[in-house]
Amino acid sequence: MDCGLYIITDEVLAPGCSHIQIAKESLSGGAKIVQLRDKRRSGAELFAIANVIRSLCTENSAKFIVNDRLDIALATCADGVHLGQDDLPLSAARALAPRPFIIGVSVGTVEEAVIAEKGGADYLGVGPVYPTGTKADAGPAVGTALVSSIREKTTVPIVAIGGINLSNAKDVLAAGADSIAVISAVICSPDIAAASRKFVRLINPQD
Amino acid sequence: MDCGLYIITDEVLAPGCSHIQIAKESLSGGAKIVQLRDKRRSGAELFAIANVIRSLCTENSAKFIVNDRLDIALATCADGVHLGQDDLPLSAARALAPRPFIIGVSVGTVEEAVIAEKGGADYLGVGPVYPTGTKADAGPAVGTALVSSIREKTTVPIVAIGGINLSNAKDVLAAGADSIAVISAVICSPDIAAASRKFVRLINPQD
Ligand code: NI
Repeated sequence: MDCGLYIITDEVLAPGCSHIQIAKESLSGGAKIVQLRDKRRSGAELFAIANVIRSLCTENSAKFIVNDRLDIALATCADGVHLGQDDLPLSAARALAPRPFIIGVSVGTVEEAVIAEKGGADYLGVGPVYPTGTKADAGPAVGTALVSSIREKTTVPIVAIGGINLSNAKDVLAAGADSIAVISAVICSPDIAAASRKFVRLINPQD
Repeated sequence: MDCGLYIITDEVLAPGCSHIQIAKESLSGGAKIVQLRDKRRSGAELFAIANVIRSLCTENSAKFIVNDRLDIALATCADGVHLGQDDLPLSAARALAPRPFIIGVSVGTVEEAVIAEKGGADYLGVGPVYPTGTKADAGPAVGTALVSSIREKTTVPIVAIGGINLSNAKDVLAAGADSIAVISAVICSPDIAAASRKFVRLINPQD
C-alpha cells in the first residue's frame, strides 16, 4: 500500500463541502488514499458518490477505500474497505474479499493490532493519537506511544489518525506511522488542495 | 421462492422482543421467510444476529433474507437481500450476487415493478397496501388495486406488505399477492407463534 496522505471525506465535519469535492481537491493536492465515510446516506446515494470518487482516484493513481460498507466497496470496485471494531468482522470480510482487496482495521490497543494483523488486515488505523472532537465514538487519545508499541509488534502499515495537524505530524511519523489520516485538519481548510500538499511534503519529504 | 408467510423482524416495533426471538417464534408458527431489518445496529451486531437467524431458518426449512446490507447477507450465507428503492441499485447487487441468491425489491408503482423484474428481481415487495404507522418512509397506501396491476404486468412473486392483518389478508391474496409480509400485526402479538399460524392458514389453506 502506498504510504502517502490518507484523506477521510466527512461531510458532517466540512459543512458545504461534498465528499466528491473533498476527494477531488485533496487528490489534486497529492493525497494517495481517499476513504469515503458516511453513516447517514442511503445505499443508493453512497453507491453514486463512490462511483465518482472511484474514477477520481483512478485518474490520480490513488487508492479508494470505503468505510464500513463492504457491499458498496465491492459494488464500486473500490480498492478496499475500512472496518471499525464494531463493523463486520475482519474474518467475514476477508472471506468475501480476498487480496489484493485491501482491508484496513481501526485498532486502539496493541492487542487489537496484533489480532487484526493475524486476521489478515492490510493496514492498521491507529488512534485517536491526539484528542479530537471529530468522531464521537473514537475513544480517548492514545498518544504516539501506542503507535510505537504497535510498530514493535506488527509489520503491516500503520495509518495514524486523530487530531493530527502540521505541527504534530512529524512526531507521529517518527513514532513509526507510515501514513497519516486527516479529516478535519485538512478538510476544514479553505484550500483543501494546498493543505493536502503541506501534509504530503511532511509524509514524503523526497517528493 | 416458497410463497408462505414472510416475517420482517423489527425490534423497534416490538419493544422487549429481540430479532432472534421474533424469528424463532414466527418460524415455529410456520413462517417461510424471515427478513432481518435493522437500521440502527452496528455491522458486528448485525453479523452476530444474522448468523443465529440463518441457523434457525435452515432448521425450519425457511429462507433468510437481510434488509439492505448485501455485505451482511453474503457474509452470513443468507438466501437473499431485500433492497428498497434507495438502497444499493439492483443491477449492482445482482452483479455481486448471482442467482440462486434471492434479491427482492420494494416497489410502489407498476413502473418500478416492471423495471425491477427486468433488472433481475426475484420477488417484488409491493406496498404499503394499507395505511401503516410502522414505517416512516413507506409512503401513502397503494391499495390492493396496485397489487392487481402489478400482477398483470409481471410474473415474479409478489410479497404484499403494509397494514395487512387477518381481516384484510384475503383481499390482498385475491388481488394476486403470492405472499404476505407481516411486521407489526404478528410481531406485536403476545403469542407470535400463534399469530403466525393464523396467517399461514390464510396464505396456505391446504396446509
Ligand atoms: Ni452502516
